[in-house]
Amino acid sequence: MKEKPLILVCNDDGISAPGIQALVEAVKGLGEIVVVAPDSPQSAMGHAVTISKPLRLSKTNLYGDIPAYQCSGTPADCVKLAVDKVLHRKPDLLVSGINHGSNSSINILYSGTMSAAMEGGIEGIPSVGFSLCDFSYDADFTLAAKIASSVSKNILANGLPIGVLLNVNIPKINQEAFKGTKVCRQALAKWEEDFDERNDPNGKKYYWLTGKFVNYDKGNDTDEWALANGYASIVPVQFDLTAHNSIGLINQWNIEYGDEL
Amino acid sequence: MKEKPLILVCNDDGISAPGIQALVEAVKGLGEIVVVAPDSPQSAMGHAVTISKPLRLSKTNLYGDIPAYQCSGTPADCVKLAVDKVLHRKPDLLVSGINHGSNSSINILYSGTMSAAMEGGIEGIPSVGFSLCDFSYDADFTLAAKIASSVSKNILANGLPIGVLLNVNIPKINQEAFKGTKVCRQALAKWEEDFDERNDPNGKKYYWLTGKFVNYDKGNDTDEWALANGYASIVPVQFDLTAHNSIGLINQWNIEYGDEL
Repeated sequence: MKEKPLILVCNDDGISAPGIQALVEAVKGLGEIVVVAPDSPQSAMGHAVTISKPLRLSKTNLYGDIPAYQCSGTPADCVKLAVDKVLHRKPDLLVSGINHGSNSSINILYSGTMSAAMEGGIEGIPSVGFSLCDFSYDADFTLAAKIASSVSKNILANGLPIGVLLNVNIPKINQEAFKGTKVCRQALAKWEEDFDERNDPNGKKYYWLTGKFVNYDKGNDTDEWALANGYASIVPVQFDLTAHNSIGLINQWNIEYGDEL
Repeated sequence: MKEKPLILVCNDDGISAPGIQALVEAVKGLGEIVVVAPDSPQSAMGHAVTISKPLRLSKTNLYGDIPAYQCSGTPADCVKLAVDKVLHRKPDLLVSGINHGSNSSINILYSGTMSAAMEGGIEGIPSVGFSLCDFSYDADFTLAAKIASSVSKNILANGLPIGVLLNVNIPKINQEAFKGTKVCRQALAKWEEDFDERNDPNGKKYYWLTGKFVNYDKGNDTDEWALANGYASIVPVQFDLTAHNSIGLINQWNIEYGDEL
């Protein structure tokens, strides 16, 4: 009999968040599950790793019979620790999320959820991050969980190309209005920052980061288009960041370092 | 008379690090310089931004006549604050570094130095990160500074394609042995983690993240090859992470979400 697939579950909202609870439920029929997730929220941590302080890792009974560990570090730390100290072998699938809030378009770069999936990809684990476009704590994860289950089954059955992981975003939508999944490219968009400037009780300035998300991309093949039009978006993502098309151009530059060299 | 270009200098080792001092010296003849950098080291922060606490920004006289501000946040925070609250306009060039240590290959994902450059790129600023493959505080930045100056001149003269920034790494090498710059792709490599497990005075375990860098990529067109063979590497980098070649493949999957939907 074939061994059950080993599935690592991670996130960035913390091990007790409703989103990761929904994800554990969604994939627990697909294999042997192990949860390793941050002990506190780690949103917007990007692909940070912890090198300046030690990490703690402790078992928790939050998921009953399913082995679960909370870690004091970032999502990327969780994946590294899970592979090296908990699983002692490479899992067959890494699922991260379900994030409370969108990680579409440029948000992938700031996302702890996608950082865990990216770290999985770098480790050679077929990896996927799931995010629901609803920031609220008590968001309805029903649809997102179904998509997470189905995408996970597909990855286990088909694998993923080397160096590729998936960024899956699910719209906040009534299930009746949901149109299905759409494989997309990342939209060209950005955050227009608007720092909220305040004075502390001593009269010194401080700033809160706020802003609004602006999509410059008019294409109908992007994740933003899909989400705005009733689809869940699936973006295949690579961690080779080389802009291959620009190599020839930069090669034409004349880079001098001075005669004295 | 044409206005002088406005150049924003950032880093992740902190505003007083020798590497950023060398970078300020390297570019100060090229335009009007403003320094906005973290008030403390922010290495391995990836593309983190600070949303859960307020940011502080204060002027410092560290660079004499050159306006300089230290920020309590991450490198990406520094760029956002610089554009929105210090410069009040988009600079003509963003230079980040010079990092004490390599940011070649996969290290770009963990790098605060490159996160600042990436944030610049997202903001539409021609941006570049420089890193010297020498982690020591008193590293010799002479060669790196010359390359930084020349690459910066080229960016100001030629611009960069939309959505593209540069990751420049300089080997730790005698200037006599230096062979020049090479435009490269990012090598496929990873860190083999090896957590150092210890017990605290109360007998509880904790872990230090350690590991060794392993290059799986045998190509002679990679940044790792260039650095190992006496060249400085220049990798054009994009923040569209879409694995465009995999869209067709994933489109063939059968993603179901249950009849009850």
